[in-house]
Amino acid sequence: MHDLIAALPEGRVLTDPDVTESYARDRTFVPPGRPLGVVLAQTRDDVVTTLRWATENRVPVVPRGAGTGLAGGATATDGSVVLSLARMTAIRELSPQDEIAVVEPGVITADLDRAAREHGLMYAPDPSSYEISTIGGNLATNAGGLRCVKYGVTRDSALGLEVVLADGRILDTGRRTMKGVTGYDLTGLFVGSEGTLGVITAATLRLRRVPREVHTVAAEFMSLRDAAAAVSAIIAAGCQPSLLELMDRTTLEAIDDWKNIGLEPQTRAMLIAQCEGPPDEMAALCEETASFVAVSSTPEEAAELIGIRRLAYQAKERIGQCLVEDVCVPRSVLPDMISRIEEAAARHEVTIATVAHAGDGNLHPVFIFERGLAKPPAEVWAAADEVFRAALDLGGTLTGEHGVGLLKKRWLGLEAGPLVTELHQGIKQVFDPLGILNPGKAI
Amino acid sequence: MHDLIAALPEGRVLTDPDVTESYARDRTFVPPGRPLGVVLAQTRDDVVTTLRWATENRVPVVPRGAGTGLAGGATATDGSVVLSLARMTAIRELSPQDEIAVVEPGVITADLDRAAREHGLMYAPDPSSYEISTIGGNLATNAGGLRCVKYGVTRDSALGLEVVLADGRILDTGRRTMKGVTGYDLTGLFVGSEGTLGVITAATLRLRRVPREVHTVAAEFMSLRDAAAAVSAIIAAGCQPSLLELMDRTTLEAIDDWKNIGLEPQTRAMLIAQCEGPPDEMAALCEETASFVAVSSTPEEAAELIGIRRLAYQAKERIGQCLVEDVCVPRSVLPDMISRIEEAAARHEVTIATVAHAGDGNLHPVFIFERGLAKPPAEVWAAADEVFRAALDLGGTLTGEHGVGLLKKRWLGLEAGPLVTELHQGIKQVFDPLGILNPGKAI
Ligand SMILES: Cc1cc2nc3c(=O)[nH]c(=O)nc-3n(C[C@H](O)[C@H](O)[C@H](O)COP(=O)(O)OP(=O)(O)OC[C@H]3O[C@@H](n4cnc5c(N)ncnc54)[C@H](O)[C@@H]3O)c2cc1C
Ligand SMILES: Cc1cc2nc3c(=O)[nH]c(=O)nc-3n(C[C@H](O)[C@H](O)[C@H](O)COP(=O)(O)OP(=O)(O)OC[C@H]3O[C@@H](n4cnc5c(N)ncnc54)[C@H](O)[C@@H]3O)c2cc1C
Repeated sequence: MHDLIAALPEGRVLTDPDVTESYARDRTFVPPGRPLGVVLAQTRDDVVTTLRWATENRVPVVPRGAGTGLAGGATATDGSVVLSLARMTAIRELSPQDEIAVVEPGVITADLDRAAREHGLMYAPDPSSYEISTIGGNLATNAGGLRCVKYGVTRDSALGLEVVLADGRILDTGRRTMKGVTGYDLTGLFVGSEGTLGVITAATLRLRRVPREVHTVAAEFMSLRDAAAAVSAIIAAGCQPSLLELMDRTTLEAIDDWKNIGLEPQTRAMLIAQCEGPPDEMAALCEETASFVAVSSTPEEAAELIGIRRLAYQAKERIGQCLVEDVCVPRSVLPDMISRIEEAAARHEVTIATVAHAGDGNLHPVFIFERGLAKPPAEVWAAADEVFRAALDLGGTLTGEHGVGLLKKRWLGLEAGPLVTELHQGIKQVFDPLGILNPGKAI
Repeated sequence: MHDLIAALPEGRVLTDPDVTESYARDRTFVPPGRPLGVVLAQTRDDVVTTLRWATENRVPVVPRGAGTGLAGGATATDGSVVLSLARMTAIRELSPQDEIAVVEPGVITADLDRAAREHGLMYAPDPSSYEISTIGGNLATNAGGLRCVKYGVTRDSALGLEVVLADGRILDTGRRTMKGVTGYDLTGLFVGSEGTLGVITAATLRLRRVPREVHTVAAEFMSLRDAAAAVSAIIAAGCQPSLLELMDRTTLEAIDDWKNIGLEPQTRAMLIAQCEGPPDEMAALCEETASFVAVSSTPEEAAELIGIRRLAYQAKERIGQCLVEDVCVPRSVLPDMISRIEEAAARHEVTIATVAHAGDGNLHPVFIFERGLAKPPAEVWAAADEVFRAALDLGGTLTGEHGVGLLKKRWLGLEAGPLVTELHQGIKQVFDPLGILNPGKAI
């Protein structure tokens, strides 16, 4: 470490174990290893210096954004160096004419969105964590979010990247144009690669026009299946929602306990939907099965309703420890997936509170267990295992947006067969032949 | 070839040079080599058999859809086997609930769109060639089209692929769900890889809801710059067009000569725009600089206007031979790029007729030259060279949607530096270590 410390500007490296510990884990229960130190990169040069040193000394490097990940992707391994990009926070360019921004990886997602809004634009991908996660982390996990149902995932907004490879070489991928087909899609390959192929030091991102009108519908249902049926009806009618979020009773109770939202005793599920045209049809479709429907068109009311959804995770953390899961199924089997989650909860006597980006078929069953335990108990893993297998069984995938990281490596083989695994390893070998970057993760 | 012929079902292989010749070229001037034969695959097994044989015998294979490509990607090389997928035309599944289709690669793009429309859905990517190109070719080139400005390119509709690798192994990539982040994005890597990484034998594609209302605006301008200014104004105002096509005077004259569209003498450019909301604002913005504006809301009128645009290529072919080019620039420099094209035309005394997917900044300058010449004359290449360099100079890219193929390999180095080239080769090595698939193309 001494030569790395010497090679970097003053103050860039932390080695005190009490301090580095807080950079060693993300928001999962994966037990972290002990890193040699943490580099707080402020420039691309810092990243290059760190990776050159790591390659020379064969030291594993764990790239890190804000550490809000839910798959253990940023979890430190023993003897690694954590490379934090959180201090590279410049928005280098924001072009309203071209509807693009060029940003450093440590920019907080919501900060970019706010900067864009000053020009009537928005940065569309908005994970629930958007006030705390970084663009670099979003890119590395291909984060989804509430607006995905209309605007796509992070990959759909990534036009070009600047990446430092494991050996310190600087790669520019992609372009500033809306389209382009020169060569293989390296940009798309880095997006979602969970820090295993290179360290993203800048990104050219597509911005979108802020919609002129947004209407919000909130509906309460007496069963989860009724709510899921409303989701299907809204999609099938072609309402083209720009947001379609589902919360179950357990989630709503957690929020109600905390913020007193006036939850009715018979309400078993709530749907929050937005659309950019008239809301009447969406509301009418909800009314067919809902016990209560409210439509709001003022930004304040809408923000309040979306606010309820954004509280979900913190509310659950108040009632116990949370293992946040993330499966995605074809939209038509959403009701079946919900039943399978309920069955798993009952069979293993585990509390599962589910929220879903329902318009995408993406569910987050959150397994809640006793505080104080160092890791989820066996019955939680047994129920989670059942949920993962059910998702695959229904034609779905193990992870819609959180990634594989360390948390899901155990199950990866169920989805990715031996040929996919071989090709993943082959690609890894091309970009990082010495296995410096985030070894043992994601693939 | 004998053992290949024997290994395949009767009638799958063509070897008569008079017949195979018509499978040896696409729509470019790249002179084709002489293939050993053409395999007309009807099943995935045919593809596997062909590729196994090719690997054993080290014979290059040139995958081919409909041969409508404009980059020489499907052009045969000496001693190769052309593998045509055009007869694999089944739409295996079309799920209105999940808004997806599973199709074979030989399905004609517009056929899938029509099949989807029976369910109120559409297949969004619509290259101008959509009545003659195949889904496999669209995927392999990441084709764009008229609706791209709103719905994205082919990659944005590709959820999963079945691919046969060079050695005959079968790979499934991606998923049936709207989102998913399990492992590297292999689907995205195959899209746009121009047949160099594997042969696509099936695709799971995303469908979209047909918009409820579409309004079409056609506007005529007395200068190309005025038209380009209207494009910028439409984008900047947030009209969110679903189609925004520009045609210059030379193009319009070619169409007028053929179909007598009543072209006014002062008209130098025409813009055709569609939007899915009220058209008034878009029309008003055009009126600021246009000499004539028409708004139509009946499907028939709209189809007629779009029809004019779709005639552009054939109309030009009536006046001479065409080298169709394809550059893409950031939208804000569209007027500059147009000027640079006009300058190149004047300097080299070459006729260039330009159409543009203007909403994406994607221009197709078509270089028209004398019929009877075996290839474009030197001044055409000189003008094209100037146009390519201008696009890069303005922050753009060499190809927005047609691909590199053989046609643009000469210029590839200007855009992709040595590191990108090294990584492209590395990836190629992972998927096709013996260089069986489309050698010498694209990368
Ligand atoms: C309350 C809460 C709500 C959430 N909601 C959502 C949601 O709706 N949708 C969603 O997708 N996720 C959600 N998440 C998960 C998490 O916020 C996302 O995965 C986010 O993208 C991680 O960003 P980060 O900056 O915290 O990255 P980290 O957690 O620090 O890192 C994530 C991964 O990215 C890699 N990485 C980070 N920066 C770089 C870089 N510059 N170059 C290369 N690799 C890098 C790391 O190695 C790691 O593998 C939520 C998390 C919380 C706590
Ligand atoms: C009049 C006209 C208008 C056009 N307009 C547009 C437009 O608006 N936008 C646009 O993007 N393009 C356009 N094109 C170009 C062309 O139609 C597209 O590139 C189209 O995607 C090619 O499809 P194809 O089936 O003809 O493929 P081919 O020309 O046969 O092949 C194209 C490439 O794909 C590979 N390939 C084909 N099938 C497979 C497969 N199954 N697996 C692996 N590789 C495969 C080939 O090897 C080759 O590299 C136009 C062409 C014409 C003639």
